[in-house]
Amino acid sequence: MRWSKYFIPTLREDPKAAEVTSHKLMLRAGLIQKLAGGLYSYLPLGLRVINKVSRIVRRELNKRGALELLMPVLQPKEIWEKSGRWETMGPLMMRFTNREEKCFVLGPTHEEIITGIVAKSIRSYRDLPKNFYQIQTKFRDEIRPRFGVIRAREFIMKDGYSFHATEESANREYKIMYQAYSDIFKRCGLEARPIEADTGIMGGRQSHEFTVPAAAGEDIIVSCSKCGYSANAELAARRMAPVRTEKQTILKMEEVNTPDMKKVDDLARFFRCGSDRFIKTLIYEANGKPVVVLARGDIDISEAKLRMVLGAGDAVLAGDRVIEGVTGAPVGFAGPAGLAGIEIIADQSIQGLVNAITGANKKDKHIKNVNIEKDFKVDRFVDIGIAREGDLCRQCGEELKLSPGIEVGQVFKLGKKYSEKLGAVYLDKKGNINPMIMGCYGIGISRTVAAIVECHNDKNGIKWPVSVAPFKVLIIAINYNKPEIKEASDSIYNNLEKEGIEVLFDDREETAGIKFKDGDLVGIPFQVVVGKKYLVSGMIEIKKRADGCSEQVSIESVVPEIKKRIGQ
Amino acid sequence: MRWSKYFIPTLREDPKAAEVTSHKLMLRAGLIQKLAGGLYSYLPLGLRVINKVSRIVRRELNKRGALELLMPVLQPKEIWEKSGRWETMGPLMMRFTNREEKCFVLGPTHEEIITGIVAKSIRSYRDLPKNFYQIQTKFRDEIRPRFGVIRAREFIMKDGYSFHATEESANREYKIMYQAYSDIFKRCGLEARPIEADTGIMGGRQSHEFTVPAAAGEDIIVSCSKCGYSANAELAARRMAPVRTEKQTILKMEEVNTPDMKKVDDLARFFRCGSDRFIKTLIYEANGKPVVVLARGDIDISEAKLRMVLGAGDAVLAGDRVIEGVTGAPVGFAGPAGLAGIEIIADQSIQGLVNAITGANKKDKHIKNVNIEKDFKVDRFVDIGIAREGDLCRQCGEELKLSPGIEVGQVFKLGKKYSEKLGAVYLDKKGNINPMIMGCYGIGISRTVAAIVECHNDKNGIKWPVSVAPFKVLIIAINYNKPEIKEASDSIYNNLEKEGIEVLFDDREETAGIKFKDGDLVGIPFQVVVGKKYLVSGMIEIKKRADGCSEQVSIESVVPEIKKRIGQ
Repeated sequence: MRWSKYFIPTLREDPKAAEVTSHKLMLRAGLIQKLAGGLYSYLPLGLRVINKVSRIVRRELNKRGALELLMPVLQPKEIWEKSGRWETMGPLMMRFTNREEKCFVLGPTHEEIITGIVAKSIRSYRDLPKNFYQIQTKFRDEIRPRFGVIRAREFIMKDGYSFHATEESANREYKIMYQAYSDIFKRCGLEARPIEADTGIMGGRQSHEFTVPAAAGEDIIVSCSKCGYSANAELAARRMAPVRTEKQTILKMEEVNTPDMKKVDDLARFFRCGSDRFIKTLIYEANGKPVVVLARGDIDISEAKLRMVLGAGDAVLAGDRVIEGVTGAPVGFAGPAGLAGIEIIADQSIQGLVNAITGANKKDKHIKNVNIEKDFKVDRFVDIGIAREGDLCRQCGEELKLSPGIEVGQVFKLGKKYSEKLGAVYLDKKGNINPMIMGCYGIGISRTVAAIVECHNDKNGIKWPVSVAPFKVLIIAINYNKPEIKEASDSIYNNLEKEGIEVLFDDREETAGIKFKDGDLVGIPFQVVVGKKYLVSGMIEIKKRADGCSEQVSIESVVPEIKKRIGQ
Repeated sequence: MRWSKYFIPTLREDPKAAEVTSHKLMLRAGLIQKLAGGLYSYLPLGLRVINKVSRIVRRELNKRGALELLMPVLQPKEIWEKSGRWETMGPLMMRFTNREEKCFVLGPTHEEIITGIVAKSIRSYRDLPKNFYQIQTKFRDEIRPRFGVIRAREFIMKDGYSFHATEESANREYKIMYQAYSDIFKRCGLEARPIEADTGIMGGRQSHEFTVPAAAGEDIIVSCSKCGYSANAELAARRMAPVRTEKQTILKMEEVNTPDMKKVDDLARFFRCGSDRFIKTLIYEANGKPVVVLARGDIDISEAKLRMVLGAGDAVLAGDRVIEGVTGAPVGFAGPAGLAGIEIIADQSIQGLVNAITGANKKDKHIKNVNIEKDFKVDRFVDIGIAREGDLCRQCGEELKLSPGIEVGQVFKLGKKYSEKLGAVYLDKKGNINPMIMGCYGIGISRTVAAIVECHNDKNGIKWPVSVAPFKVLIIAINYNKPEIKEASDSIYNNLEKEGIEVLFDDREETAGIKFKDGDLVGIPFQVVVGKKYLVSGMIEIKKRADGCSEQVSIESVVPEIKKRIGQ
């Protein structure tokens, strides 16, 4: 492809709104262009990378027997009502009413649809297992889309779904997909770590996220350097560091006026102490009834852990009315002392707290000098806090490390959640009808591209791994209007094309400076420079973008050298 | 691919709701499955054909220098307001409001977006021309989706847009795309006829539709077998057959009571005459003012022709108030006699009418014995009727033929409509700023697949052309559990795979009858039968699905014979 005929609108300056490296570089290198918040066009160069990643995904999945299909973007409301997710998906799901007043979902995921297809078409254990996938544009109504294509309103996903007659078969497929994902990300030049993750809105029983360590990541990877345990912060099994023994005398509870002070931060200022002196008291609803959840004031509660601890499909913060019913006070003044007839569970973080501060279950009042056992009882001490720096590994006691990462894929064991609700059943060998066991497997294709850029760049631009590079070779012809330069670079270009090597040819009437700058910015792995040196000595420079190493070769050696380097 | 591992849910019976052959066969052969009205999933076999057609499209377009990109599905309202189409697109365009109350369009077409991209990135004549395209899912809120993927709410389109500095360049590209389209459809095994077409909602100045003759088509192709002229019925330049001279005496106008009778059909029953005795009188609004449009009662008016005749961007039927203002009567009783101060244009169909019937411009009254010149004057006689059987070619006078067709592609000269509104301008050699000239080019990818099925089938199923077949070869192993059959068919399968030939291998535990039926239904071009004959004589049957011709070959000859036939 000749640059002069192509479309790579590179930018000299960092776009103002771009916060993270990949976003800046993807805009500057002309890979994407912004249409509106969270909506991007993939320009020709960007689409080539999307296609490269998609091809790797397809190859690894097809090799493992997964079957590609394509389901509609628009999904009728009724099928989401059947699965129960019309209610639970919340405002992140885009919903659309057509001119006949029919409601549709703009597909964020396709469990309902694929389960419907299988329910219609598969009857016997003989036709199982099956693993389907698609690569498709998906939608999420992000309130704060950001970081370019990392958190967008519209993005390209690979979503896959498997169906099984037995748990063993489902577990086997989970492992196969886990391995496929490891291979895919490796091929894409990413060190994606599989970490334990929450099943969230998908439901199901086990899940791993594949997360790429990167400063721009919104996920937190929690890992133990000693035993190798890793999980996301929501789910990481942690132990608190040993509590410093508090030698204080246990005092008597005392009510304090705290008008309009509902937040731990405000209260900490008022009481002139750290937020770790507070017992935060939250009322959740799970399994159809309220439950009191306690944690130290500086600890965030993980709803994922809470769901697991409570054995509940869902655990949500109770509404104002329920809270007032439980505490007898308006929201913001709840405390464990004096509550009766309700389960109280507490994060381990409050163990060892002496003379703590809590709400008084009265408007505008808090209590100081509250003590466990003396002033209230805890039914269960559990691990429901989000992991923090300083927490210890529950497996081996080593201090956990926290680092940011970009989630690029996730695999789930779904169990029978969807097959039971949507009638995906099969006849077993004995003629009995059973619901199928399901798995589901996602990869963010567009996000993977951003993660690659995030991990492969320097101050001058992108450094594409060969496997996903939009072109393998960039020919930079300096003074292309000089007949010798034209002849030599044209001939290299034609020979590379003839060999089926993807080559971009900078034949523009631009200065050497601009060409080198743009070349480094768009990051094609090998630069072939036809310039002054060629005129003087007949030598061509081959430069590797990744490490900047360059070599001089004769014009005849260019094609064989390139072939050797890209392993083609 | 082994059938036993694949997913081809064939159906024995024609699905009830399917009206046309392609719809029936695509459902029965397991290419698609219905999710809801106008929404279909492409099952693995169907997706393979979509990909084959897409690949042909890409190859022909890339060869001609078009650049592939991918734009968002969601498009903000604001850019459609800028182009003026937020108003004019009507209810066919799906609109969606997100949780922040922002309005979006679910892209039915992308003129606004691509013009925005070009406006941001291209400044100089040196960077022109450019031709961009994408292959993407598109949306239309069809009231009556039907014929499977032929008229769906969600469908796959190739849409392309070119940008030029000069009219000559735009015209050249139009011809290049016209030729590309001809080549694409030919490669897909379709005889698509380029016919003159309306520019419709796209606007612009010239357009050709590529239409495949097929009984299931919703378009009407009008063609002249003598001079080769062809166009769609909306646009076909026609002449009426010579009017039989009416020897009747010209009578005096006479008012008749026609209470509540507004429609030509009702009136024809009442007056006991044909609808061709009426002069239909319609009030349109164009260029900001009303105009009276006349046609014989049995002729439908083409708004496309009307727009051209009036030189108007838009011509719409006037509302009740305007009609009452013009005629002084409620809607349904308009007639030309007595109207003053307004332009009256008439389709040529009313020429020669004697003692016709028209509205009286009074409530519940019509007039009989109305005559041109005597009772009213026509400003212009023009061709604004939709072509009908019996009409003559305006070029050569031969009788025009009408036949149904499926529109699979369309090319448009857009001119400056979008570039002016959206600021896609360039600096010419002299440093002057000019709006770019645009073209746009669409292909219905999913509809093309349906058209191929519509044109290539018999009573037993589909007969895929080799170029778009999901697999080239189907191995039918009869009694696969017999060791000799298994060994022979496995070896043919492995050898074909090794040669990179796309092969589907029916290794199921099914009867020969079911395998042959399914084989003919899914329509893979070459069937390789390993059965009883192989056990008896060592011979394998190669059958061509298209014509049913078969040949016996030795097992060693299968691969070379197949390679010869598919030209690989």
